[in-house]
Amino acid sequence: MISRRDIEAAWVRIRPHVRRTPALELTAGTFGLAEPLALKLESLQVSGSFKGRGAFHKLLVSKVPEAGVIAASGGNHGAAVAYAARALGHRAEIFVPTISAPTKVARLKSYGAVVHQVGAVYAEARAASEKRAAETGALAVHAYEDPEVFAGAGSVALEFAEQAPFDTLLVAVGGGGLIAGCAAAVGDKVKVVAVETEGTPTMYEARRAGQPVEVKISGIAADALGASRIGAPNFEIAQKLVADSILVTDDAVRAAQRALWDELRIIAEPAGATGLAALLSGAYRPVAGERLATLVCGANTEPGSVL
Amino acid sequence: MISRRDIEAAWVRIRPHVRRTPALELTAGTFGLAEPLALKLESLQVSGSFKGRGAFHKLLVSKVPEAGVIAASGGNHGAAVAYAARALGHRAEIFVPTISAPTKVARLKSYGAVVHQVGAVYAEARAASEKRAAETGALAVHAYEDPEVFAGAGSVALEFAEQAPFDTLLVAVGGGGLIAGCAAAVGDKVKVVAVETEGTPTMYEARRAGQPVEVKISGIAADALGASRIGAPNFEIAQKLVADSILVTDDAVRAAQRALWDELRIIAEPAGATGLAALLSGAYRPVAGERLATLVCGANTEPGSVL
Repeated sequence: MISRRDIEAAWVRIRPHVRRTPALELTAGTFGLAEPLALKLESLQVSGSFKGRGAFHKLLVSKVPEAGVIAASGGNHGAAVAYAARALGHRAEIFVPTISAPTKVARLKSYGAVVHQVGAVYAEARAASEKRAAETGALAVHAYEDPEVFAGAGSVALEFAEQAPFDTLLVAVGGGGLIAGCAAAVGDKVKVVAVETEGTPTMYEARRAGQPVEVKISGIAADALGASRIGAPNFEIAQKLVADSILVTDDAVRAAQRALWDELRIIAEPAGATGLAALLSGAYRPVAGERLATLVCGANTEPGSVL
Repeated sequence: MISRRDIEAAWVRIRPHVRRTPALELTAGTFGLAEPLALKLESLQVSGSFKGRGAFHKLLVSKVPEAGVIAASGGNHGAAVAYAARALGHRAEIFVPTISAPTKVARLKSYGAVVHQVGAVYAEARAASEKRAAETGALAVHAYEDPEVFAGAGSVALEFAEQAPFDTLLVAVGGGGLIAGCAAAVGDKVKVVAVETEGTPTMYEARRAGQPVEVKISGIAADALGASRIGAPNFEIAQKLVADSILVTDDAVRAAQRALWDELRIIAEPAGATGLAALLSGAYRPVAGERLATLVCGANTEPGSVL
């Protein structure tokens, strides 16, 4: 199981390649919340989401073959791998499910990747990517079930903790890469809370079952939080270092996207507003004086879609 | 003429009411620029633009009558006055020209203001607001031609200089409130450059004439940069502390808006991307090693309009 030290080492490796994204400390009263809230604007990260951190880390610690890299992704991980591959001089092939937003597909192509749209859900795109990697010998970069990927992702929590004080960090969960990294980084010092939509409850159901289980994926966050099973090493970390797991509705996510625009002129994709949705909807109830924090972890959406 | 000390005092007064907006330091190569660039995300300010600073300062240093406050504005100043008035417990009436974006008008109403849409251009809305203020005795808050307003606005430059090192600050100009404040704040230490669209050249034409002159307003930035004459005290400061004045095309502004979205997932209104437009279009040519900075000074637009 990776430790805080591994996250620190990953952060040092990727730092020349990624952005130190800004944090915003909001006073109590903002968004009608009774407690102060810190937001980290990781949507400003290279490639438009936190995934840039993990992709760079994986490529920097790997021997990448001539055939390049392959990834399967609801979009953000694919964009990050394509971005990092281009920056580091490697070829990239990206497999995405057919439900992926046109914006995300266009962006993959703009980063120079070869894009394959295969399958109705993430799992099918992933199977196709593994088959292709076996054929070409390319390095397959998994979206979340890889400690070298989520060690990179976890650097966002170390950076955030440097920028703003907080007691509780709410983290959106898909396959569990971001939360595994964040929990390993700061889970011994702050309360890390997993937030998922009701249609993408991989962590929630795994905690109920005591182990990763397959779930049926649906709803507003299906493309970005749509892994159908939490990663095994991710869940191992979460069982030790994630304090709680809660669900929010799709409507709560939409309301949080609108609130981010109305109050701050920030665009977030559904996954990027899921942590905030837990606060605005009351799904997470802080105690008096609890210093709250969440990540606006991605903005790869049509900007007009948030209204 | 106001000094750096006046800006510092204004900053102390408004600090409990406004946000410390984040700055982002971008490495050389970002946006294809040869030099590093710092961006201040003042679009995250309360009310969605830098105008929140000036509005709070004016209201905090004034005795506001029972009739409240009145402002005329292309939108952002009106939103700021409405926001500050509500926060401080005053009534607000806002006059806007009929070309103002529907989003801006809706926002004014959401802040509790009474909105009057009068006249084709800013000057007509302003005349109507002055007539109304004479009738009711309300405090008329001018959008830019008031040292107490632009002293508040200038605090953005002091804050930015604390956050990131820069040699040159590019500032979008409408009536000259923001640049007067920024020049008074940091114009003795860094090179302050005025940037306007070809359709809103109030500073450019005033510098040619040696005094404020009336200009005809048109184009993409007409609603936010659409003052038809630079403010007199603003121009006095600019003549001493603004190094240069340059123009950009509407197309360059649109390209800068798209680049902010594509590279950073930031939404800017046209005025908010005008400083960056001068860099991306080559209208401003830095020397090697020049540390550049500009303000993303507002985002009160339809988010879908930037693509």
